[in-house]
This record gives sequence, C-alpha cells and structure tokens, in this order.
Amino acid sequence: MIKVVLLGAGNVAFYLANVLTMSKNINFIQRYSRNIKNDKYFDKNIPKTNNINNLSKADIYIIAINDDAISSFSKQLFFKDGLVVHTSGSMPIEALKCKAKKGVLYPLQTFSINHKVEYHQIPICIETENKKDKELLHLFANCISKNVYEINSSKREKLHIAAVFANNFSNYMFKLANDICDKNSIPFDILKPLIKETANKIQKISPIKAQTGPAKRNDNKVIKNHLSQLSENQKEIYNLVSKSIINTYN
Amino acid sequence: MIKVVLLGAGNVAFYLANVLTMSKNINFIQRYSRNIKNDKYFDKNIPKTNNINNLSKADIYIIAINDDAISSFSKQLFFKDGLVVHTSGSMPIEALKCKAKKGVLYPLQTFSINHKVEYHQIPICIETENKKDKELLHLFANCISKNVYEINSSKREKLHIAAVFANNFSNYMFKLANDICDKNSIPFDILKPLIKETANKIQKISPIKAQTGPAKRNDNKVIKNHLSQLSENQKEIYNLVSKSIINTYN
Repeated sequence: MIKVVLLGAGNVAFYLANVLTMSKNINFIQRYSRNIKNDKYFDKNIPKTNNINNLSKADIYIIAINDDAISSFSKQLFFKDGLVVHTSGSMPIEALKCKAKKGVLYPLQTFSINHKVEYHQIPICIETENKKDKELLHLFANCISKNVYEINSSKREKLHIAAVFANNFSNYMFKLANDICDKNSIPFDILKPLIKETANKIQKISPIKAQTGPAKRNDNKVIKNHLSQLSENQKEIYNLVSKSIINTYN
Repeated sequence: MIKVVLLGAGNVAFYLANVLTMSKNINFIQRYSRNIKNDKYFDKNIPKTNNINNLSKADIYIIAINDDAISSFSKQLFFKDGLVVHTSGSMPIEALKCKAKKGVLYPLQTFSINHKVEYHQIPICIETENKKDKELLHLFANCISKNVYEINSSKREKLHIAAVFANNFSNYMFKLANDICDKNSIPFDILKPLIKETANKIQKISPIKAQTGPAKRNDNKVIKNHLSQLSENQKEIYNLVSKSIINTYN
C-alpha cells in the first residue's frame, strides 16, 4: 500500500481525492487544506488537517494548488523523507522548494468539481529527479490511470501549450458558435451532436485529415459571405483561422 | 411509405442512403449518380440510374451534391410532381430551379464515408415553401432523426456560420495542438481524452462557463511564456484568441 497525503482543495485535488479513495493499492491517509468552503465535496472519513506542521508520514505528498503558490508553499515542508510532487502542467520540477525528493504528477484533463470525468482514462504525466522515485511514482500512477507517460519539464511545458489550443481555444470556438446561435434565436442544442462528433472523429482520424469546411476547400465566395455577417471580433478570428487553414491545405 | 429518390454519391448521400435503407417507413426506390467510383459504398439492392431522364416517380427527391452545382443540376428536373429538397447549409431554398415543389433538408453533422456516426442523433433542419410540404418533410425527417428543427434559409445561413466555428475551427485548434506535439516528439494520443472531455463538458455546461486556461485567468506571465515558444502563425492565433478570451471575461 502506497501511503499518500493530499494538499489542496480545488478541482484537481477533488479529482485526486476521488481516485485515491477508489484505489485498492493506495492508502489515502490525510488531506491538508486551509479551505473550509470545499470540505463538503470531500470524503469525511479521510482525516483532514489545516496545520502544515501536523502532516502524517507518507510515501507520496501531492501538492494540488495554484501554480503561483507552489514554490512558496513547498518551502514550508521541512521533512526529508518521502516524495513530494506537484500537479502543474506549466511549472518545472524545480518549482518545488522542499527538502524531500521532488517529482511531478500532471493529470492532463479539464476538471470541474461539479462535472464527473472517466477517471481511469485521464492521462498522467510523471517526472522525478531519480530512477528509484520514478519506480514509486510509476507504481502509484498506474493505480489511478490506464495512461501513464514519462514527460520531463521541458516537454510538459510544450504539452501544456498544446492543451491550451486543444481545450481552451476549441472551447472558445464553441462559445463563439453559441453567441451566433443566441443572436439569431437558434437553440445551441442543434450544434451539440456536431461538437461531440468533432471530438470523436479525431480519436481515430488525425485532425489534418478530419478538416472540412469552406476554408479547407478555399471557397472564397462562402468565406466572404460569412465574414460580411460577423461582428468585428468574430470577423478577425474567422479571417485569421481561415487564412491559416487555406495556407495549410493549398 | 414515403417514396424517396436520392441524387448524389458523396459523404452526405452515403449517410442518407444508410438511414433511408434502415427506416421502415421509407421506401428508398432509386438513386441517381454519374459517379461510379463510390458505387462500392452503396447498397447494391437499390436500383441506380445515371440518366436524369429515367428518374422514378417519388414523393421526395433529395439532392445531395456540391453547393455550387445545385442550381444548374436542379434546372434539369422537368417533372412537376413530388417535393425536391437540397441538403446544403449555406444555400437558400431558392437555389433550387426545378419545376416541382421545393424544400431543404439540412443534416447538421460532419460526414466521412469511412467514419460511422450515430445516425438518429443527427439534427435535421427542414424548410419548405408551403404548409402541406412541411407536413410531409416533417414526417420524413422524423423517420431518420430524433432531432428535427424548422429553420428558414436566413437562420440556416447563420447556423452554418456557427457550425464553421464549432466544427471546422475547433478541429483546426486540434490540428495546431497536434503540430506542437509532433514537433516535440510527444504522442498526440495524450491529448485525446482531454479533447473528448472538452466536447462532452459543453453537452451539459455552456461554453462560457466551461472556459478555463491562462487567458480566462488573464495570466499574462503564462501567456507571454507560451507566445515565446510558438511559430509565427501559431503565435498570431494564440494572441488573437487569448485577447478575445481576456476581453470576454475581464
């Protein structure tokens, strides 16, 4: 049994608390947080402390807090035993300033406390300072996910940028589509099956092959007509993305 | 039984041929195409003609061909009985130049001959010139889909623009993410669960609420760092979309 202490009470901590509780090979012995508001989302059977000096002895300490706070928070961890990992996509392993061994456990998913995800499908990217810690972290990661990848800090940073395009920016395209629907009294529900299929398709076909639409066909007549019906901001985005698609395919 | 003739042999015609064959209340009596190459994808039990003057008598004729060809092609249909519909999102009902009654049957989905879709989930947008034809087209559309909407030409045009953002542009964001992965020897597979969840999430939560990421948080430090690692084209898109997200949320 791998003994684990979880530090944090946000969306990532909530997901981790759930998988830690579910796994038979993990002993989730304690969680730490100064946040009381989110307590209702967490299992009351797991002992909680709000005192950083009262942490139990564990094999792995997982810090799931805001990127900016990782360094200053980890400075307060004076113990030398165990492995301390953060869960950030954009921070290097060196962001950890604790005395103990350091590592990263980055779950690549978009989390919300009020929306459930298939936990064991979530890719976990791991990094450690040395081989022995890597074995432990690999063992641990395999308990909570079917998809474990070894990714160092430099690659993880690139992966995080790719995730911004794949998640944040694609969601914003959905938002712009929603705006157009709202303005024209069209229910956004009509677009939902299309959006689902857009994501399903690239599970099997690469995005470069899945591309369709007027820009892919370099259909300037349709593009011009669309541009004439958009607001300034929508027009700018439509224009730039279409040009980029045209350049890619023609 | 509604008698139907299908004209065309592309992705949309392929999908329609499948649902027409599956439905118990539809009599799929004939298909027309001059294309021989795609014959292998279609059911050989459905009579096929390549002579426009040999069309069988039907209740509904569905034209599933390229937008640009709809007008010139429909001019060749001299019969007066039956309802002729096109399947284009961006063409008005007036694009049809036949003698018979006119309508539109627009299935809102991204189709590929080699990728299966849950047919009955696909939204169907219908439009006719008069009430009687609408009843027939509604009856027909309900045979092939659970989601039927009445959408006139002007709204359909807006919906098509929204679909360009929701499908074409979001897919292009996946493509840019894929490029970053390839360049850094990261398997694109790591991002697939995230992409699936991005689309799943907005089935229940609106995109404006589902938005996350550095631009949503107005985190200029992360944005600047990301921009410094991108190619010119990626940078332009990252910059414009981030600015637009910042303006939306701050």
